[in-house]
Amino acid sequence: MAFDPSTLKFDDKGLIPVVAQDHATGEVLMVAWMNAEAVAKTLETGRVTYWSRSRQSFWIKGETSGHVQTLVELRVDCDRDCLLALVEQEGPACHTNRRSCFYTAIRDGEETEIMSPMV
Amino acid sequence: MAFDPSTLKFDDKGLIPVVAQDHATGEVLMVAWMNAEAVAKTLETGRVTYWSRSRQSFWIKGETSGHVQTLVELRVDCDRDCLLALVEQEGPACHTNRRSCFYTAIRDGEETEIMSPMV
Repeated sequence: MAFDPSTLKFDDKGLIPVVAQDHATGEVLMVAWMNAEAVAKTLETGRVTYWSRSRQSFWIKGETSGHVQTLVELRVDCDRDCLLALVEQEGPACHTNRRSCFYTAIRDGEETEIMSPMV
Repeated sequence: MAFDPSTLKFDDKGLIPVVAQDHATGEVLMVAWMNAEAVAKTLETGRVTYWSRSRQSFWIKGETSGHVQTLVELRVDCDRDCLLALVEQEGPACHTNRRSCFYTAIRDGEETEIMSPMV
């Protein structure tokens, strides 16, 4: 069946959450949001393109930072209300310069930093 | 710093998205939602507990199906508006009986099933 981004289930703001995962290591890098047009752009260009909720504009990941995400494969979940993007990530995915945004673990009830910024 | 679930950033429905990842293989199994109380219950019990948006009730994963998710580690992202749960998953995570909910890939513009239900 041909994939049509408009058949996904978007929330009341027209957005769908996207998990970006390193295609080689399996590391979960970040979660961000796309609208239908961002999904289409991502598939057309191979450059992962989100919708920035804070800036209310398209966000071609790495366009200003150089930390590009190249799409390897896009997957849809059973409810069609979430996407998984397998990506090749250039450098850090996180704006704090860490490889992943999930650098804080809860251990014994304490927030523990488990990842340092990349040099 | 002691972790307090109320310091997370919840959406306008009081929910936060949670990525469940197999702690051993790195496979992304599913994405679901928690409210602050579900986060607290998950940490207290070690059984991953979501908030079911369709049923509007707590959803202790596997309580009826037996496909339990045991928490290995909970992580918070840089914006505090998304969680990553590293889990030990008993059997399939998906209600379709597949290991992961992300069993549909977009390949050459076509939806392609890449995973079969578990026996």
